[in-house]
Amino acid sequence: MAPGLAVLLVGDRKDSSLYVELKKKTALKLGFNSFVVKLEEESSLEQILNHIDQFNKDTSVHGILVQLPLPKHIDPALVLRRVDVNKDVDGLHPQGAIFQPCTPKGCLELLDRSNIDVSGKDVVVLGRSRVVGLPLSLLLTKRNATVTLCHSRSQQVKQKAQRADILISACGVPELVRGDWIKPGAVVVDVGINHIPDHTKGSGYRIVGDVCFEEAYKVASHITPVPGGVGPMTIAMLMHNTWLSFITKVQDENSCK
Amino acid sequence: MAPGLAVLLVGDRKDSSLYVELKKKTALKLGFNSFVVKLEEESSLEQILNHIDQFNKDTSVHGILVQLPLPKHIDPALVLRRVDVNKDVDGLHPQGAIFQPCTPKGCLELLDRSNIDVSGKDVVVLGRSRVVGLPLSLLLTKRNATVTLCHSRSQQVKQKAQRADILISACGVPELVRGDWIKPGAVVVDVGINHIPDHTKGSGYRIVGDVCFEEAYKVASHITPVPGGVGPMTIAMLMHNTWLSFITKVQDENSCK
Repeated sequence: MAPGLAVLLVGDRKDSSLYVELKKKTALKLGFNSFVVKLEEESSLEQILNHIDQFNKDTSVHGILVQLPLPKHIDPALVLRRVDVNKDVDGLHPQGAIFQPCTPKGCLELLDRSNIDVSGKDVVVLGRSRVVGLPLSLLLTKRNATVTLCHSRSQQVKQKAQRADILISACGVPELVRGDWIKPGAVVVDVGINHIPDHTKGSGYRIVGDVCFEEAYKVASHITPVPGGVGPMTIAMLMHNTWLSFITKVQDENSCK
Repeated sequence: MAPGLAVLLVGDRKDSSLYVELKKKTALKLGFNSFVVKLEEESSLEQILNHIDQFNKDTSVHGILVQLPLPKHIDPALVLRRVDVNKDVDGLHPQGAIFQPCTPKGCLELLDRSNIDVSGKDVVVLGRSRVVGLPLSLLLTKRNATVTLCHSRSQQVKQKAQRADILISACGVPELVRGDWIKPGAVVVDVGINHIPDHTKGSGYRIVGDVCFEEAYKVASHITPVPGGVGPMTIAMLMHNTWLSFITKVQDENSCK
């Protein structure tokens, strides 16, 4: 018996396909079972929910991940709510997730491993998404950080960023954060993964973060690169949550014997 | 048929007894049915949960409120979780409440009625309680405010408060916020209800907020008093949620006919 991770991909977005492939590879490398279901862009809500139901029932599946974003005609809340909360390893269940969401958890793990204590620190988070910004701000507050949560409607964001001991950007604006946004010695965590056109690349694009790394690394005491920083941590935390789900189930079964 | 509000009070704290009495009075004044159950301080978790179960089953009860704080030997999360989420008019269900929590909702209503738009404003919230500070900061963020959530471990709170367009204190420290904490023209919402000893009063105490009103009202453009500001709004919103629960049920029954 091994942990099983099921991933549901709807549509054929290149970035989503790549992430699903990376998750599958990592799962197999760890000796997990990997189940990937790919549905067409035009799939109905009912078809998607049917697959979720099958994963929910399947006792060899311990974690279920719905790759976001879903096509525009599908309400993600309806899909995420259908996932058995005990298998919701992405931590995105709208009604009280059990597992910590992967990207916020990955950011905290990065800080922990770098011995950066957030307690009492002024943290500015850029972006209020349900997947990253919002849950991350709550987790940071729980750890005694003082969080200012900025977003597209915030005023004077640069000045706010300049006051941060720890600046975390998860807003999806390519290279928004310049060197002069950063307090000297501050810690910078870049959650952004943005594709921008680049004709010098075979793919026609390159990937940049929300932070202008070339400028920022000269000012910050610690900084995460893109790619290679938070992204791999998200995948690692997904595996960790799947592992936690697996051992919880094994323990439950043993305690019932 | 009228809306029914059930209130459970455990122990005999004077302030809690007063709040329960005020809620009962308001309910009756509005023509609601009021059900108050008072249990002894020493009540077991099981006894408390039994009463919750009865309220859950009772079709004449549309709203259930557990008066907080509960005695120290009782885990409030276990009690709040037991409340039928459709009757959770206090909006405190740990796993995804349906109703907005009363005090945060009351604060927003106060701002709305005073034509104060929070969108794009810098809001500093003092206090990160599950009942007020945390949910209020999320509701404000949803309304496009830029929120800084401060708490007992925050540094340089005075300087942060001075930057606020809207300052909301819900930390339970008597008269913490002095006049010089407030940016001239800022809006001040005082959620604190603190009892401090006062030998000149027959009761032996008087009630003050988290804000030193005498100093603050000279600096702020708008300010709520204590008592008389947010407190009555909390009760009003409790009644509103109970009413919403009632009409939702009536509509559901009609649609089933």
